[in-house]
Amino acid sequence: MQTLTVALGHRSYPIHIGAGLLDQPELIAAHLPQPRAAIVTNTTVAPLYLARLAAGLRAHGVDVVEIVLPDGEQWKDWATLNQIFDSLLAHHCERKTTLVALGGGVVGDLTGFAAACYLRGVPFIQVPTTLLAQVDSSVGGKTGINHPMGKNMIGAFYQPRLVLADTDTLHTLPARELSAGLAEVIKYGLIRDAGFFGWLETNMERLRALDEQALVHAIHHSCAVKAEIVAGDERESGMRALLNLGHTFGHAIESAMGYGNWLHGEAVAAGTVMAARLSQRLGWIGEGDAARIAAIMRSAGLPDRPPELDVEVWMRGMQLDKKVEDGRIRFVLLRAIGESCLSADVPVELLERVLADSAG
Amino acid sequence: MQTLTVALGHRSYPIHIGAGLLDQPELIAAHLPQPRAAIVTNTTVAPLYLARLAAGLRAHGVDVVEIVLPDGEQWKDWATLNQIFDSLLAHHCERKTTLVALGGGVVGDLTGFAAACYLRGVPFIQVPTTLLAQVDSSVGGKTGINHPMGKNMIGAFYQPRLVLADTDTLHTLPARELSAGLAEVIKYGLIRDAGFFGWLETNMERLRALDEQALVHAIHHSCAVKAEIVAGDERESGMRALLNLGHTFGHAIESAMGYGNWLHGEAVAAGTVMAARLSQRLGWIGEGDAARIAAIMRSAGLPDRPPELDVEVWMRGMQLDKKVEDGRIRFVLLRAIGESCLSADVPVELLERVLADSAG
Repeated sequence: MQTLTVALGHRSYPIHIGAGLLDQPELIAAHLPQPRAAIVTNTTVAPLYLARLAAGLRAHGVDVVEIVLPDGEQWKDWATLNQIFDSLLAHHCERKTTLVALGGGVVGDLTGFAAACYLRGVPFIQVPTTLLAQVDSSVGGKTGINHPMGKNMIGAFYQPRLVLADTDTLHTLPARELSAGLAEVIKYGLIRDAGFFGWLETNMERLRALDEQALVHAIHHSCAVKAEIVAGDERESGMRALLNLGHTFGHAIESAMGYGNWLHGEAVAAGTVMAARLSQRLGWIGEGDAARIAAIMRSAGLPDRPPELDVEVWMRGMQLDKKVEDGRIRFVLLRAIGESCLSADVPVELLERVLADSAG
Repeated sequence: MQTLTVALGHRSYPIHIGAGLLDQPELIAAHLPQPRAAIVTNTTVAPLYLARLAAGLRAHGVDVVEIVLPDGEQWKDWATLNQIFDSLLAHHCERKTTLVALGGGVVGDLTGFAAACYLRGVPFIQVPTTLLAQVDSSVGGKTGINHPMGKNMIGAFYQPRLVLADTDTLHTLPARELSAGLAEVIKYGLIRDAGFFGWLETNMERLRALDEQALVHAIHHSCAVKAEIVAGDERESGMRALLNLGHTFGHAIESAMGYGNWLHGEAVAAGTVMAARLSQRLGWIGEGDAARIAAIMRSAGLPDRPPELDVEVWMRGMQLDKKVEDGRIRFVLLRAIGESCLSADVPVELLERVLADSAG
């Protein structure tokens, strides 16, 4: 097991990464302020891991409530959130009852937001079971739900007490979802670490074959980059926005295609290639780098271009991005592989050319 | 104008109290990070003050969105909260757009919670127009909505950037609501300041006649007590719970009678008398003090006893209190007028006797 820490003063917390962690419930029990927990999961993950985790905690004297939600991004809404609140209230869960999110990004975002709001805040723990959740959404405290007018529009910055990433759970993950998680792994290399990007180019096959050592390395490295950025800018007033490479385009794709039809990671992959093309149009990176970025997406089993969308659909989707300031879309762009920046000064004609090219 | 500060480090904020403050929009404009604000109010307050506040801000170059909600505690729910989100999204409000709550406690709680969640947090300002909101709900950062199973069950601790309490607005407040606010004013004397309690006994008529000097004194004193307690315990892990004197019984009354039938302050008044009677049963205060507390409630135009409720209804309502820990109800009780404490050790038979007496 490897452990690293997200350094946020008295709200700091550990991330444990390794195989077989679900069978070490003492790692969770040590963080509970009262011997009570509500495990929130979904109908896909529940048959795989819920009984095991719940039994392990109960064996440690923990009273466990089980909350099983429907599976899918389309359920990341008010109604499902209220389902969590209804269960917590029906079971008289209290301010010291800990919510445990067992699942992927949707379960983590919903559970974290429920923990932020229930009785104005109760403790929570992330047990991510998808690669995307292990390297990205479970770390850093972004929680929330979607709104018909935009993704993740409603939510909270609310940190977990612990993140427990058991790499064994990736063996039950569909290959398409593993690839979606790799999009975020690739992102960390692109925004901050050319060496890691090179390592990914070399080791993509090992990752897709679920080589344990490669997985732990990639997850640890990804979480370390994210933890460092979050520690410096918890509420995204500056540098944290770099973690959104590919997301401005990506959110527009997800919104236009209907949540859940394109996986988040797939939309981010296509969006990242578009951000690279925009950086290239600005003269910041060369054709060779842009091609490497498209190539690594393909080697990860990801799309390297977006679906065909009208320019107005793109513009509407991007205007809803949370990074918009004074009406201007702010893009995360690349100065080089491993070096990113935030820009609100992209000439509209360049943007339109990238949108037009992507449709070809 | 009098000003005091809620000391919370870099999240500290001023409370301005005085007559005519609504006509000084520069007080608000100075706190806006971008010249954009969304004023949230209700159908009762809007015709009285919305145009004036909006026009004043616009004259300072502020782009103002107006959001008018239905009036009443029964609207403090998901659906109304979503109405705010819908408007904010439709108007492309951004992370630096400030929400301004213009109204009483319901508007303030809804707006504050909307600000806490919209794009994971935007700035907000409280402009309370009821006495209850000016002395209590607008200060300290408690925001939230009700759930069918309990009051304020869903919410956030989220601090405003500024509280602007214009005493002129109390001239349009129904007498019943003024009295409801006085319940919270009396509470501050009871939990912490016997001298202020004595001043209230002497000056109740001036307050009910809206004497400006008396109002400013009472509001300033109330906010000062609350600000001191909140600064020491923002998230209610200890001392802050003392502010809930009368609220455990009070919430059960509100919940049993249907939100909005008993005003919050009325329920708190009756609940405070019950807490006094329970303190008396424990031998902590004498019959004389308990009688003084019932008397000041009557002189403020408030009920000094609860509606008749079955014991099971009481117990169910009180079990949902957010102060419950390990299944035990924790009461705020009085050691003397001006001295309060939190107790989880109330013998059930004493509690039941107080409940039985109150029905008589």
